Amino acid sequence: MSAGASKAVALDLADPLAGKRELFELPPGVIYLDGNSLGPPPKAAFAELEQTARHEWGEGLVRSWNDAGWWSLTDTLGDRVGRLIGAQAGQTVVTDSTSINVFKALHAALALRPNRQVILAERDSFPSDLYIAEGVAASRPGAELRLSADSTTLADMIDERTAVVLINHVDYRTGALRDMATLTRRAHRAGALVVWDLCHSVGVVSIEVDALDVDLAIGCTYKYLNGGPGAPAFIFANRRHHEGLAQPLSGWWAHAAPFAMESGYRPAAGIRRLLCGTQPILSLRALKAALDALEGVDVAAIRAKSLALTSFFMELVEPVCRDFDAHIITPRSDGRGSQVAIAHEQAYPVIQALIDRGVIGDFRAPDIMRFGFAPLYLSYRDVADAVSAIREVLASEAWRDARFSTRALVT
Amino acid sequence: MSAGASKAVALDLADPLAGKRELFELPPGVIYLDGNSLGPPPKAAFAELEQTARHEWGEGLVRSWNDAGWWSLTDTLGDRVGRLIGAQAGQTVVTDSTSINVFKALHAALALRPNRQVILAERDSFPSDLYIAEGVAASRPGAELRLSADSTTLADMIDERTAVVLINHVDYRTGALRDMATLTRRAHRAGALVVWDLCHSVGVVSIEVDALDVDLAIGCTYKYLNGGPGAPAFIFANRRHHEGLAQPLSGWWAHAAPFAMESGYRPAAGIRRLLCGTQPILSLRALKAALDALEGVDVAAIRAKSLALTSFFMELVEPVCRDFDAHIITPRSDGRGSQVAIAHEQAYPVIQALIDRGVIGDFRAPDIMRFGFAPLYLSYRDVADAVSAIREVLASEAWRDARFSTRALVT
Repeated sequence: MSAGASKAVALDLADPLAGKRELFELPPGVIYLDGNSLGPPPKAAFAELEQTARHEWGEGLVRSWNDAGWWSLTDTLGDRVGRLIGAQAGQTVVTDSTSINVFKALHAALALRPNRQVILAERDSFPSDLYIAEGVAASRPGAELRLSADSTTLADMIDERTAVVLINHVDYRTGALRDMATLTRRAHRAGALVVWDLCHSVGVVSIEVDALDVDLAIGCTYKYLNGGPGAPAFIFANRRHHEGLAQPLSGWWAHAAPFAMESGYRPAAGIRRLLCGTQPILSLRALKAALDALEGVDVAAIRAKSLALTSFFMELVEPVCRDFDAHIITPRSDGRGSQVAIAHEQAYPVIQALIDRGVIGDFRAPDIMRFGFAPLYLSYRDVADAVSAIREVLASEAWRDARFSTRALVT
Repeated sequence: MSAGASKAVALDLADPLAGKRELFELPPGVIYLDGNSLGPPPKAAFAELEQTARHEWGEGLVRSWNDAGWWSLTDTLGDRVGRLIGAQAGQTVVTDSTSINVFKALHAALALRPNRQVILAERDSFPSDLYIAEGVAASRPGAELRLSADSTTLADMIDERTAVVLINHVDYRTGALRDMATLTRRAHRAGALVVWDLCHSVGVVSIEVDALDVDLAIGCTYKYLNGGPGAPAFIFANRRHHEGLAQPLSGWWAHAAPFAMESGYRPAAGIRRLLCGTQPILSLRALKAALDALEGVDVAAIRAKSLALTSFFMELVEPVCRDFDAHIITPRSDGRGSQVAIAHEQAYPVIQALIDRGVIGDFRAPDIMRFGFAPLYLSYRDVADAVSAIREVLASEAWRDARFSTRALVT
C-alpha cells in the first residue's frame, strides 16, 4: 500500500461523514469526481419517484396538487435549500432554471435601483449567466452590461451607476472562491445590490446570506445537492427587499390569489413573487429525496471535509503534475470551492482516458481538467485511487495514442 | 339497464380507440373527467422513470446527457408534439412552463413587428396568459395590452397597431372552440401575428398550424397529453419567422455553441432559439412515455371520439339539467373542445359530492361544473355512469346538506 493509500485509510476511519455514502447510488468501479456537474442519485429518489408517480399521480390524480403538497413544494424545498445558504425561512423558493432565475434576479435588482442602469459582471463568469445578463440589458431600455477583465478588477468597477453586481461564488474553471463578505459590503457601500450565483458552492461551502445581508442569490440543485438532471433551481431574495420585488415573468404562481382566476395580475406577498408558472413535480420530488439526504447534516462539517479532500488530492497529485508538466490552478488557500482544476496541454484526451478507467472528471476548454469532490459520497481512499489513476494515465502508452489521435482530429 | 347504458355498450363495442385505455393507470371506481386539468399516468411512465433515474442517472451519471439523449429531449419530444398540432419537424420544442413560453412568444412577436405596440387578448382569457401579457407590456417600453370584452369582439379590434393577438384555442370555462383559420387570417390581413394557446386543445382537437400559417403557439403537456404534473410545456414558431426570432430569455440552451463556453451570446439557428436553460429530465421522460401512448394514433380519430363522447354526455345530461335547474353552456355545434361545462347555482358542492362518489370533474367560479372527456381512456359507459351519478347527486338529500354547509362556509 502506498503512503497515500495508508493515509487515506486513516482519514476515512476518522471521517464523521463516512456513513453518508451509503445513501447514494454509485456504480461499482467508478470514482465520481464530476458531482460538480451532476450529482449522483440518492437511493431514496427511486422510491420517492415511485410514490409520486404511481400513488400520487396515479391514484390521487388532480387531487394530489393539494393532498400531496405538490403546490407548496416550491416553498417547502426552498426553505430547506435556504438552511444550506444561511437564509431564514420565507426567502428562498425552488423553481424554474438557473438561467430564468438570473433573469428574475437582475430585473428585480434593476427595479430596486431605478436610477441606476449598470449590470456589472466578470468577463470570465460562467457564460450562461452572461447570456442572460445580455438579454436583460438588451430588453431593458438604458440598461447596460459592463464586464470586468477578471475578478480582481470587478470590485474597483463598482460605482454610483452600478445597479447590480452579478458574481459567481466559485469560479467554474479554477475553483477559486470569491469573498462574499467583502464584495457584498463593497457593493452596498456604493449603493449597489449583489446577485450571487451559488451553483458551484451550495451544499459544499458554508454560506451565510442573511448574516452578510446578501440581496439576491440563485443557484442550481443538481450539482452538490444531487437533485437530478435538470432539477429546478432556486432563488433567494432578502426579506428587506420583498416589498419592492418585481420581475416581468409575472405568472400565476406569483399571483396573490392564484386560484381566484382574476383577470389582472396582483403580486403575491413575499418570495412567491419570484415564482412564475407550473413546476415539474416529478423532478422536484427527486430533489426532495436529495435534500432528505442532507437533513441534519451540518454544512460546516461538509465544508471541513471538502477542504480536507481537496487538500489531500492536491498533496498527492502535485508530484504527478511535476512529473508530467501539469499545473494545479486551484488556490491552495481556503479560498477555493470543492473542485481542483489542473491545466495540462492534453487535458481533453487525459480526461477521456481517465473516464475509460472509471475516474470521472471533466474537461473545460482550453486545457483544464476539473475534479469535483463531494464530501457526502467520496472517501479519502477514492482520492488516493484517483491520483494513482491520473499518474498511470499520464505515464501510459495508451494515453499517448489518445493524445495523437485527438490531435489529428482537431487539426 | 337504462337506455343510456345500453347505447353506451353499443358505442363502446364500435370504438376503435377502446384498446388505448389499458395503457393508462386509473384507480378502480373512479370516472376521471378532469383530464383537462391533469391527465392520468400512462403505465409506461413508471418504467420510464425507473430507467431514467436508476440506470441513466445512477449508472450513466453525467455521461447520460449525451449517451441517453437527455440533451436533445427538448427537440425530439418537441417534434412529436409538433405532429399533434400539424407542425413539420424543427418548429416545436418542449421546454419550461406555459407561462414562460407565453412570455417568449409575445416578445418574439413584438420583435417581429417592431413598428407595432399592441398585444391584443380577451378579457376572459385563461388568466395566467393575461398575467404574463401584463408583465411583457409593463417591461417593454411602449408596449400596450388591450383586452376585448369577449371573443366575438376580439377580431374587430385587430388593427394596424396590433403586433400580436394572444388567444386561447378553447375557452377554459365554456369549452367553446375558437376558429383558428378565420382569426389567424384576420390577424394576418391586418399585418398582425397570432399566438395560439393550445393548452386545452392539444391532443384532442385536430390542429393544423402549418396549413393555417400560424405564427406562434404554446401549450402545456399535462392535460390531454398526460405528461405528468407540471410537465414542461411546448412552444411552436413558424419556420418563416425563425431568422428573426428573438426573446430576452437568452440562455445557454439557446446558444449557437452551447458547450463552447463563449462569453457572448450568439443565438442558435431555428427553434432552439426559444429554449433558455437546463430542463428537468425526469419530468421530460414521463412526458416521453405519455407521447409513446399517442404514437401511431390519428388525431382525427381522437377528435371524432371526443365529439362523440361530449355529444353523448350532453344528450344524456340535458334532461337532468332540465330537472334540476342546471344549464349546459358548452356549444352543441362542433365548435367545442373536449369538455362540457354546466352552470348550476350550487356547482361547488355538487362537484364535491360527485368527487366523493368517484366522478372527478372540477369547479370554476362562479357557478361552473367542468367535465373533461379524454378519448384515450374514457368509455361511453363511463359517460353514462357519470350522468347517473350527476342525477343522483342533484336529487339526493346528502347533496342538499353539502349545499347548505358550503353556503355557511362562504358567507
